[in-house]
Amino acid sequence: MNILVINAGSSSLKYQVFDMTTESVLARGKVERIGMETAMLTHEPTGRPELREVSEILDHTSAIRRVLRILIDPKEGVLRSIEEVHAAGHRVVHGGEAFSGSVKVDDKVKEEIKRLFDLAPLHNPGALTGILAVEANLPDIPQVVVFDTAFHQTMPPVAFRYPIPNVFYRKHGVRRYGFHGTSHQYVSDRAAELIGKPLEQMKMITCHIGNGGSVTAILDGKSFDTSMGMTPLEGLMMGTRSGDIDPAIVPFAMDKEDLSLNEVNSMLNKHSGLFAVSGGMGDMREIIEAAGEGDRNAKLAFDMYEYRLRKYIGAYAAAMNGIDTLVFTAGVGENSAYLRKAVCDKLTFLGIQLDDSANEARSRDDRRISSPDSRVEVWVIPTNEELMIARDTFREASKALTPQA
Amino acid sequence: MNILVINAGSSSLKYQVFDMTTESVLARGKVERIGMETAMLTHEPTGRPELREVSEILDHTSAIRRVLRILIDPKEGVLRSIEEVHAAGHRVVHGGEAFSGSVKVDDKVKEEIKRLFDLAPLHNPGALTGILAVEANLPDIPQVVVFDTAFHQTMPPVAFRYPIPNVFYRKHGVRRYGFHGTSHQYVSDRAAELIGKPLEQMKMITCHIGNGGSVTAILDGKSFDTSMGMTPLEGLMMGTRSGDIDPAIVPFAMDKEDLSLNEVNSMLNKHSGLFAVSGGMGDMREIIEAAGEGDRNAKLAFDMYEYRLRKYIGAYAAAMNGIDTLVFTAGVGENSAYLRKAVCDKLTFLGIQLDDSANEARSRDDRRISSPDSRVEVWVIPTNEELMIARDTFREASKALTPQA
Repeated sequence: MNILVINAGSSSLKYQVFDMTTESVLARGKVERIGMETAMLTHEPTGRPELREVSEILDHTSAIRRVLRILIDPKEGVLRSIEEVHAAGHRVVHGGEAFSGSVKVDDKVKEEIKRLFDLAPLHNPGALTGILAVEANLPDIPQVVVFDTAFHQTMPPVAFRYPIPNVFYRKHGVRRYGFHGTSHQYVSDRAAELIGKPLEQMKMITCHIGNGGSVTAILDGKSFDTSMGMTPLEGLMMGTRSGDIDPAIVPFAMDKEDLSLNEVNSMLNKHSGLFAVSGGMGDMREIIEAAGEGDRNAKLAFDMYEYRLRKYIGAYAAAMNGIDTLVFTAGVGENSAYLRKAVCDKLTFLGIQLDDSANEARSRDDRRISSPDSRVEVWVIPTNEELMIARDTFREASKALTPQA
Repeated sequence: MNILVINAGSSSLKYQVFDMTTESVLARGKVERIGMETAMLTHEPTGRPELREVSEILDHTSAIRRVLRILIDPKEGVLRSIEEVHAAGHRVVHGGEAFSGSVKVDDKVKEEIKRLFDLAPLHNPGALTGILAVEANLPDIPQVVVFDTAFHQTMPPVAFRYPIPNVFYRKHGVRRYGFHGTSHQYVSDRAAELIGKPLEQMKMITCHIGNGGSVTAILDGKSFDTSMGMTPLEGLMMGTRSGDIDPAIVPFAMDKEDLSLNEVNSMLNKHSGLFAVSGGMGDMREIIEAAGEGDRNAKLAFDMYEYRLRKYIGAYAAAMNGIDTLVFTAGVGENSAYLRKAVCDKLTFLGIQLDDSANEARSRDDRRISSPDSRVEVWVIPTNEELMIARDTFREASKALTPQA
C-alpha cells in the first residue's frame, strides 16, 4: 500500500509518499505560496535530485493536482498511475476532546474539525482545505486524520484543567490539549523498544524542541502531562513564542501599549521567545555561536531557554516521582549537543550522567547519550511524524478496506 | 524601643506594637471599613481580652489617630504616651527594582512608591496612605518601609526576565519581581538557624502557602527564583487566583465572553483558583473535608492545588540541581498536614522521607517533619512577617538615630 501523507497549512502543503511494505519514502516535497502566481513546488524523489518548479497554483485542490501529476511523471515520478495512491493521511493540529486517536475521514469528522477552528484558527482551516483538496482529486481513496492533540487525551483532569471558572471549560473548551503528540508518541515508543522495556513500566520525559517546543511526562505508557496547553503558546520558551509568563502581563501590555487582542496574540506568538531576548536571532546554532563570542543578549536567550526547559524536566519528574528515561528530539533536541549537555549536567540529582563523547558524536541515528552507570537513560531519537501518520493511515485504511463484522 | 508595625490596604489597616528589647508583641489589631461610618477597630492587648469598637473613621489618618488613642488608653492601652512609639515600620508590596532592602522613609522613597503604583495598583496606594497617616500623627518618628519584593532582588536575569520583547522590560518594568519576600526570608533564615548550617551552603525551597501562595528557590543564601512574577497572579494555584495558565487564554476569554481588561484581571485574581474549581469553596480545610465526603469538584481542586505546588518544587530542585531543605509556612503550609503529606509522599525521588507522626502533631512551633534518615530536611516554620518588619525597622531606625560618620 502506498500512502500520501499531507501536512497542509493556510498557504502551503508538504507531502511524502510512503511504500508501506517497506515503510520507505518514495518521494517528498512541498508546495509553497499557494494562492499566488509564483507558487513553488519542490519535489524530491528518494535518491534522485530535487526539482523546483514555479507556476500559478491558486488553491489547495490545484496544488494536490500538481503534486499527483509529478508523482506519476514518467521522468520525475515514483508511481505509474494515480491508482497507486491507495490512501491519504493528514496531519491535523487540533482534535479537541473528540479525537483520542487517528480516524478515517467522513462527514462527521470534517464537521468536527471545522467546529474546532475556534481553538486552532491558524491551523485547522488549512488542514481541512487539504482534506477537501485530496477528496476532489482522489474521491475514492480512504483518508485518515492524525491529530497533534490525540496522544495527550489520556491526561488526567489534574493535568488538563485550568484553575479558572468552569464555564470556560464547559462552554468554550478551555483546557490543556497539548500538541506534538505524534512526535512524543513516536519517540517514546521507539525509546521503549530500544531500551527493551514495556513503555507501561517506564517513567519517561520526552522533549520535542524545534522551533516550537514541548515536554511530555509519560506515565503508565500514556501522556500524563505536557507543557503546551489550550494553544501551542504555553510552556517552554520557543523560537518566537514566549511560553509561560505571568498571565497578568497580557492585559498590562494591552493597556500600556494599546494592543488589540490580535496584536497581543501576535506579539506573544511571533515576536517573543529566543527571537525577542537575543535581539533578532531565531536559530539556536546562531545564538550559541553569538553567545560564545560574548553577545550578552544571545547568552541570556540561551540561558533562559535552557533554564526553562530544565525546570519543566524537574516539574515532570515531580509529577511522576522520578524518571528513568529522558528523550530529546526535533531540530534543537536532535542537533544541539551543547544544549543537551547544559540541561543534563545540572540534573545529576535525578540520576542523570551524560556520556560526553556519545552526546557530541555526529549522527542521524537513534542513540543513547547517557553513561552506562547513569540511573536515567538519556536518548536522542530523531522524530518521524510523517512515518507515524503513514502507519496510522495504513492501519485505519486497512480497517476500512476489510470491515469487521 | 517600641515599634508600630503597619500593614495598610486601601480600606483597612493592621497593626502590631513590638517592644524590641524582648521582641515581644504588646498589642495587635486592625481597623476595617476605613471611609465608612461603620468602621471597626479590633484591638488585642497581649494577654488581655480583645476589644471591638464601631465608629466613623473616614480616612487612614483618623484610623491611625484612633489606633494611637487606644494604645495609650489607661484601661485598654499598652503604652503610657505616644512618645513611647519610637518608630513605625510599613509593609509595602512592591519595591520594583529600586529597593533591595528596607529603607527609612524620605521624600524620594515616597516618590518611588508612588511611581510603582502602575505595577501594584491594588497595593501600593494603600501603603503610601498608611505612611502619610503615621507622618500626620507622629511627624517626628522615623518610618521604615519593608518591601515584599526586596528579598527577591537577588534573582539573576535568567530567572527574572520574560521571553517577550525587551521594550516591555525597559519601558514598563515587566519582569519577575516576586512577593512574600519577608516571609521567605524569615523562614529560610530560621530554618538555617534551626538546622545549624549557614544558609549560604544550603539548597532550600520555601513554600509560603496561605490564601495567596508562592514558592522560592534559595541558593547561596539568596532568592534565586520565585513563583510569583510581575504580579502576585503568576505561579501556584491559590485561593481565588489562577496562577499559571496558557497566556493565550487571556485574549481568548476576553474575546469569547466580551471581557474588558479589568474584568479579565478580576476573573483571574478573584474568581479563579480553589474557589473556581471547587465550585465556591475558598478554605483548604473545607475543601479537604468535602473531598473526603466524595465531592468531586473539591477533590479536583485539592488535587490540582497539590499537583501544581509539587511541580514547582520539582522545577526548583532542577533549578538548583537538588535540594537539602524544604520549608512549609503560612496558613495552609503551617496547618494542613494532609496537604504536606500529599506533596511529600510523591517527592521521595528527591530524598524526602516524611515522619508521619511529626507531620500530624498539632503544634504552633517550628518543627522538623522529615524522618531522621530523610536526605532532605522538611520543616514547618510559622512565618512572622511583622517581626521581620519590626526588626528591619529597629535596625534602620537605629542607624537614623546614630548616624555614621
